[in-house]
Amino acid sequence: MSSKNRLIYLPLGGAGEIGMNAYVYGYGPKDKERFILVDIGVTFPDMDGSPGVDLIFADIAWLEERKDRLDAIFITHAHEDHVGAVGHLWDRLEAPVYARPFTAYHATRKMEEQGAPADQVIIASPWPAMIDAGPFKVSFMPLAHSIPESSGLVIDTPEGRIVHTGDFKMDETPLVGEAFDPVMWADIAKDGIKALVCDSTNVFSQHAGKSEASVGPEITKLVGESKGMVVATTFASNVARVKTLADAGVAAGRSVCLLGRSMRRMVEAGHATGVLKDFPKTISPEDARELPRENLMLLVTGSQGERRAASAQLARGKYLGLTMKEGDLFLFSSKTIPGNERGVIKIINSFSEKGVDVVDDRAGIYHVSGHANRPDLELAHEIMNPDLVIPMHGEHRHLREHVKVAMSHGRSAVLAVNGTMIDITRGGAIVDSIQTGRTYLDGSVQIGAMDGVVRDRIRMALNGHVLVTMIIDENNEPLGEPWVELKGLAETGRSNAPLQDVLEADLGQLINRTGKKTLRDDDALEEALRRETRRSANNEVGHKPEVTVVISRLA
Amino acid sequence: MSSKNRLIYLPLGGAGEIGMNAYVYGYGPKDKERFILVDIGVTFPDMDGSPGVDLIFADIAWLEERKDRLDAIFITHAHEDHVGAVGHLWDRLEAPVYARPFTAYHATRKMEEQGAPADQVIIASPWPAMIDAGPFKVSFMPLAHSIPESSGLVIDTPEGRIVHTGDFKMDETPLVGEAFDPVMWADIAKDGIKALVCDSTNVFSQHAGKSEASVGPEITKLVGESKGMVVATTFASNVARVKTLADAGVAAGRSVCLLGRSMRRMVEAGHATGVLKDFPKTISPEDARELPRENLMLLVTGSQGERRAASAQLARGKYLGLTMKEGDLFLFSSKTIPGNERGVIKIINSFSEKGVDVVDDRAGIYHVSGHANRPDLELAHEIMNPDLVIPMHGEHRHLREHVKVAMSHGRSAVLAVNGTMIDITRGGAIVDSIQTGRTYLDGSVQIGAMDGVVRDRIRMALNGHVLVTMIIDENNEPLGEPWVELKGLAETGRSNAPLQDVLEADLGQLINRTGKKTLRDDDALEEALRRETRRSANNEVGHKPEVTVVISRLA
Repeated sequence: MSSKNRLIYLPLGGAGEIGMNAYVYGYGPKDKERFILVDIGVTFPDMDGSPGVDLIFADIAWLEERKDRLDAIFITHAHEDHVGAVGHLWDRLEAPVYARPFTAYHATRKMEEQGAPADQVIIASPWPAMIDAGPFKVSFMPLAHSIPESSGLVIDTPEGRIVHTGDFKMDETPLVGEAFDPVMWADIAKDGIKALVCDSTNVFSQHAGKSEASVGPEITKLVGESKGMVVATTFASNVARVKTLADAGVAAGRSVCLLGRSMRRMVEAGHATGVLKDFPKTISPEDARELPRENLMLLVTGSQGERRAASAQLARGKYLGLTMKEGDLFLFSSKTIPGNERGVIKIINSFSEKGVDVVDDRAGIYHVSGHANRPDLELAHEIMNPDLVIPMHGEHRHLREHVKVAMSHGRSAVLAVNGTMIDITRGGAIVDSIQTGRTYLDGSVQIGAMDGVVRDRIRMALNGHVLVTMIIDENNEPLGEPWVELKGLAETGRSNAPLQDVLEADLGQLINRTGKKTLRDDDALEEALRRETRRSANNEVGHKPEVTVVISRLA
Repeated sequence: MSSKNRLIYLPLGGAGEIGMNAYVYGYGPKDKERFILVDIGVTFPDMDGSPGVDLIFADIAWLEERKDRLDAIFITHAHEDHVGAVGHLWDRLEAPVYARPFTAYHATRKMEEQGAPADQVIIASPWPAMIDAGPFKVSFMPLAHSIPESSGLVIDTPEGRIVHTGDFKMDETPLVGEAFDPVMWADIAKDGIKALVCDSTNVFSQHAGKSEASVGPEITKLVGESKGMVVATTFASNVARVKTLADAGVAAGRSVCLLGRSMRRMVEAGHATGVLKDFPKTISPEDARELPRENLMLLVTGSQGERRAASAQLARGKYLGLTMKEGDLFLFSSKTIPGNERGVIKIINSFSEKGVDVVDDRAGIYHVSGHANRPDLELAHEIMNPDLVIPMHGEHRHLREHVKVAMSHGRSAVLAVNGTMIDITRGGAIVDSIQTGRTYLDGSVQIGAMDGVVRDRIRMALNGHVLVTMIIDENNEPLGEPWVELKGLAETGRSNAPLQDVLEADLGQLINRTGKKTLRDDDALEEALRRETRRSANNEVGHKPEVTVVISRLA
């Protein structure tokens, strides 16, 4: 091929964070490349940085401007951080969406929910089947992860082969979905790999990862020894774990009941797509209520302490008529994602108040991770033996460590965070830097993270909001004095008078000494009222609030 | 003594949470008991539950109403969750404050800062010295913890002896402060202990705790092997650790510089009170700037990721002219308290971007806890051999587990959370339940957690705030149409017109169809405007905002 062509890799999301994965590959002459997008996920908001926001997407503006050159979107697996934005962002990209059946099942629903054309989701067969997408040929490479049918992508380009791992672990016994297949890996790698774009999540975990199969016996033992009701939670999408939990219940002579929408949906999807076989018969919550509690095993949503999920509702009281009591057991067959600790601890304490025994993954035997640990990453590097390692799916610290690991074995590696465009044909040289960021789904609207909307919310939350209104008559004279309304501020401060009265008095005095010129000038008057409100409030209650001033002029 | 007297224990804070410790002991006839208060601490706010709040105190209203019967306040040690509220709440209690010198040093400063009478802080000598406080005799029992001069309290009552451990660990080599002294413990316990009120923080840690002395060699090795600048953080109040870090720097031929106000203050307090000896000479930040970085060791505040602390400032850029670079080392000689993970991870990623190597306590060798683990608690129970174990200083799950541990050894134990009054003379029977809660220091004002102020802030943060103003003339006719101002809401919604315009149009139409009767009635008009604003905004942008309506009537 012409040496003027370049083979670019550009993460828009997922490189420098764990979440909202979106990776662009391009091939062709500069500014005429044809593109594919790998994954289009979400990340979740929090009160600290994004209060009131519903979901967070990668800012895809750069790709949207070039969507006529986008040939396809590939989804590696059905976790929200990989597929969650497909319905919300599809109409800004308008390209066919390829995924394997279980993932496609979820992508299709997400398209439907947002009114996007579900027939754009195309079911793909796994390796060695290849999909043509512009200059690329792409194949889904089955891998083990914590969800069925997770896949890497084998991306053949005119410059050679790229392997994009997606999320994976080296699990030879994953119970549901495909096992690590060294023969297939060797087959894929045999003619050389140009670049390995590789999951970095667990690069700090020093020991080889444990198989999904290792948790079954421990869970079975725990459930078997329990006397009361047993309730267990895990990510619903971890269908293998859900099955392990259900099997443990059955082995202990218990009836299994699924609680929480995503728990039912995932099992349903597993059945519908054929990835889940021999799942035990489940009973309805109504039937569960009629059974002795020692004969019952509930599998519930909410492993991360989500306020509205089944686990949190059981912790607070009842869920669909079911309650937990002294002597019951609650099992977290899951890891708490950093940032979710408070919610999880709250649930554990609520259960403690009810006398429910809580078992979590402290002992490291009731949960295993879905990501490759450091030795597993080293093994993946070794098998693939790529010209270049490009760490992805990690915060900066993970990417940097992953680069170090690769280099310690004499490999080339490049650290490319969101917005860094590298040219794989030039050994991973950085060729451009793209403006990236976050888009918030806020209620029903997409807004930019930097639009100031959320910044205003945070400021109101930290400092309260004071509304000042005043009327100016036809002669530019104040009609009465400024009025004040407070929201999120203490009612009384240091002078022991109502804060509202103090502010109104201070603003009244300000107006008395305000000249004609300022009274005629809305901006100047607003600014004077704002400044005095902040000064006076700070003096009274120690907060400089947000201030909105409304001046009504009688025309 | 008369059997009509009772010996009560009533936690107002610290039992059912880790933070804002405040424990009341009382002795006497019902409703005529004389009281002492043990500890008066704070807990820290967070954006999820208490945005904009500065500090959180236990609600002491119950004790304030009975302050004429309060004989003394005892502070076990100088951690903020034990002493932090003394300056803020003293004038509501007005009792002498007893503490050992290092603790008293801090209590005095806190009193001064809040304008409370610092001479009310009285320096106490340790066991066997006794302080008379109404019907009680109280002695400070030196214990090891992660701060100098931490003490349990031996509380002698007419009904027998209580031991209140405060925070402690069984450390025979704490480096700074007093070691675990089995002879003293045995001496205190020899005539029998009525109740052991005991720290529960680490009840889930299964192995015996490690000594403070164990971290020194590891830290010395790490610092010795480092090539660039070394920066280390820990809780400044952990004076022993600060000294270990400083000694490690000196051993590696480095000059030591303290950064951050509390770091300098704590070392100063250690010197002033004589608990800290042989602390290496430190240099100023100005001098540090002149030294080659390989000759420098900085000890900085901010182990919990606090945004304004020295560590966060170094992560973002520079602090007092000092910067970190590729090849430097940053050591967290500390544990991340649950809930602070996000802030700490943010710092680690910022350092990663600079090429700074970060070492944290993942390996478990650069930090040890200051609290007794389960086997240590069992040992404490065994030595004291109390009639009753009362777990404190823990969330509900910790208290419950601690009760279980005690019971598993055949001991009596009682779970008493905040507000639970128990009678120790009656085997820990619950005799009353007191309304407790939290008081927020909000700017310069104390407000109740349930006052609604913070609730309003959270609602504004989640949903935005719309201000609606309208003017009604002398004839109860609208003068113009309602005006709308937005804060924290998207500017445009589904109709692609500015949200402000849509809301004003909808409110204008509402007013057109509003009858005279409603126009005359402020409450009805406000409610109608509020409801329409929420409906219209929800329709446009998917949020039902907070709404403040201001109606101006021209008289």
